[in-house]
Amino acid sequence: MPSRRLCKGTDMRQLDTSDADFDAALTRLTSRDEVDGASVDETVAAIIADVARRGDAAVLEYTARFDNLQVESVATLEVSRERMTEALCHIDVAQREALEYAAQRIRDFHERQLQQSWQYEDALGNVLGQRVTALARVGIYVPGGKASYPSSVLMNALPAKVAGVAEVVMVVPAPGGDVSDLVLAAAAVAGVDRVFTLGGAQAIAALALGTETLPAVDKIVGPGNIYVATAKRQVFGRVGIDMEAGPSEILIIADGHTDPDWVVMDLFSQAEHDENAQCILLCPDHKYLAAVRAGIERLLPTMERADIIGVSLRARGAMIVTRDLAEAAAISNLIAPEHLELSVEDPEALLPQIEHAGAIFMGSYTSEALGDYCAGPNHVLPTAGGSRFSSPLGVYDFQKRSSLIRCSEQGVQELGAMASVLARGESLTAHARSAEMRLTHKKPAK
Amino acid sequence: MPSRRLCKGTDMRQLDTSDADFDAALTRLTSRDEVDGASVDETVAAIIADVARRGDAAVLEYTARFDNLQVESVATLEVSRERMTEALCHIDVAQREALEYAAQRIRDFHERQLQQSWQYEDALGNVLGQRVTALARVGIYVPGGKASYPSSVLMNALPAKVAGVAEVVMVVPAPGGDVSDLVLAAAAVAGVDRVFTLGGAQAIAALALGTETLPAVDKIVGPGNIYVATAKRQVFGRVGIDMEAGPSEILIIADGHTDPDWVVMDLFSQAEHDENAQCILLCPDHKYLAAVRAGIERLLPTMERADIIGVSLRARGAMIVTRDLAEAAAISNLIAPEHLELSVEDPEALLPQIEHAGAIFMGSYTSEALGDYCAGPNHVLPTAGGSRFSSPLGVYDFQKRSSLIRCSEQGVQELGAMASVLARGESLTAHARSAEMRLTHKKPAK
Repeated sequence: MPSRRLCKGTDMRQLDTSDADFDAALTRLTSRDEVDGASVDETVAAIIADVARRGDAAVLEYTARFDNLQVESVATLEVSRERMTEALCHIDVAQREALEYAAQRIRDFHERQLQQSWQYEDALGNVLGQRVTALARVGIYVPGGKASYPSSVLMNALPAKVAGVAEVVMVVPAPGGDVSDLVLAAAAVAGVDRVFTLGGAQAIAALALGTETLPAVDKIVGPGNIYVATAKRQVFGRVGIDMEAGPSEILIIADGHTDPDWVVMDLFSQAEHDENAQCILLCPDHKYLAAVRAGIERLLPTMERADIIGVSLRARGAMIVTRDLAEAAAISNLIAPEHLELSVEDPEALLPQIEHAGAIFMGSYTSEALGDYCAGPNHVLPTAGGSRFSSPLGVYDFQKRSSLIRCSEQGVQELGAMASVLARGESLTAHARSAEMRLTHKKPAK
Repeated sequence: MPSRRLCKGTDMRQLDTSDADFDAALTRLTSRDEVDGASVDETVAAIIADVARRGDAAVLEYTARFDNLQVESVATLEVSRERMTEALCHIDVAQREALEYAAQRIRDFHERQLQQSWQYEDALGNVLGQRVTALARVGIYVPGGKASYPSSVLMNALPAKVAGVAEVVMVVPAPGGDVSDLVLAAAAVAGVDRVFTLGGAQAIAALALGTETLPAVDKIVGPGNIYVATAKRQVFGRVGIDMEAGPSEILIIADGHTDPDWVVMDLFSQAEHDENAQCILLCPDHKYLAAVRAGIERLLPTMERADIIGVSLRARGAMIVTRDLAEAAAISNLIAPEHLELSVEDPEALLPQIEHAGAIFMGSYTSEALGDYCAGPNHVLPTAGGSRFSSPLGVYDFQKRSSLIRCSEQGVQELGAMASVLARGESLTAHARSAEMRLTHKKPAK
């Protein structure tokens, strides 16, 4: 299995912006294969239709089939408050403290994202405003099995609770009945209201449509496999969803002053997620890149996930020699990375040149791992270039706005006359007459 | 064609919340048929793939085929600055003034939505923040042909310009070469940067992918037919998109003190959009509903779009007798309407009971038509129950956020220790080691 041999430093490709074919090489490096999901689409559509028709009975059947978990009723899949509190006692004290520490920092940061309602009165006495309210009920999907991520529970649930969502319903698959104490403990710390051990497309369908036992939610967030992602896309419109998460990415711009081993480990921490994760290091200094390469070779054999890291670095990683830091910033803007480390002595000086990134880690002390867990900002970030047009998951994703308009008798005279002209220009005469009727000189007798 | 005869007052269904089968009737009334779009999906996917492969040449071919518009190059489809300025002179002075008046009010309202960057330093000297920047380039789709809506140009383009989007690229189909002066004038007033007379799935593909002539954008907004909507869904992820707009809806809660003819015309103004538009009137007063019914019968024959209005009211309209205004608010919350008129004497008293609505029009003077054109708030609103989880189009849709983290040497000691515990709990040891390396007592020698 040659593709499984450990990555050598020399295996990670190196590009140079002065190469003649650099642009094409960069395009190849960052191209994202489209998955053909036609058969998944059909499978998922059938599951959703079945849950719509048969509710709990369908949910039970799919849970037995896909998660090897046979129970009599969906109600028995609900995790009790007691079980969640027990989980908090089962985990190490250090883990519990770290979860609570992280939760507090995440809350502190996210509370600053809360948006408030506002309104104002114009010169005509019309009142105009924007009313901000929390979503009523939200579903959170948490992957189960091997990849058990309590930090994801915090990052998805806490912004919803900070927003004021009254009921956060979490689903987590429990193949064979196993569910991680750390995940349940994180749910308890985050204040999740209800937890069901349920996963896959059937869980998304149940949350979107509601069943006899599960309440229908207004929005579903959280990562999942292709079936979960496809189900979310299919129920979108009926409920809100978050962005689809692609393979994770890090882009590091280094000026050569950070300990090369720190940069090596930051690359590894991204690569260990997934063989498709993408790690790119940009630096104007050839010698520094050679030192990083040596560090990869030395440290990789010591890593628990050396296989995954090796495949990721070989297949999708790259070191790029740039003319200077400005050129590195320009390339970063083309890629619009999920995570961007400015591992440079003066990150503030470079920041104005950065246009797109989900999260920006400034200075050599700020490893991405700190942001993943407990710095405070969210670790759910746009991937695959999405930072050009979207944002980290935040409190704003769990608030909604309604416009408010209250016209005064004076105000309606002016607005009505203008609306009438515009409506007639669009041949929408009922619109025009609805405005005109409010004009005093045309006000009909009651 | 019996379904085309004029709607009689008696044709609009009436429900009563005290009816035994009210809940089922309400569910039927507001159920939304799913369109089977499989063949549209394939057609659109082929067009997008073709534009990806052949660029301008494909765009020209589809434009000739679907819009009956044969030109030599995509560049000739671009509308010059001069042509846009000419359009401003071709329209009536009153129309130009109304467009400029509306634009100014829309700007005034939307400027209050601008979000600012922020950052703070915690007790450990870590700097945390949220950086807010405008999207770089945005595409706006404007439907052409018969339904020419300059107000939509203002409502889609102005929030982008207020956000600071550097380049707003508008596409509008011009079947046979015709494009409305009002639409071009609105584009000029809104400050649209470039306009191409181009439509359909090929326009969406060109904006999302870029061609030799059209620049690739970061987000596409604006309404369109099923091909346009499907194309937007298919390019989502590569670019951002806005929500899909379903048939328009109004829900009016009346206490019986508004001139019944005003309410009639407000219902008509929604119904005239589309035979699938939904108009619902809730009122505790039987006699008032009878007066509205009489008004419908009297006024409908006087309407230019009587056919469309009649079909809409018969097929999807309803008057609902409620016990009181509180019950009316509860039903409105179940429906989560796009437009909600509180046509009552004391709308402020009722407002706290309203949970979901795209825009709330308060008091009898505030007809929805005013909000459609010039009150200031956006007229692009969530439909089909989307106001449970989403918001009017706004400046926030054209801004994006990046998280900022800068750890201090002191801060990293505490954060690193906590991150290490959490990362090891998730078996992500590269994450743990990346954090641990920054701890002073473990700082490796350079």
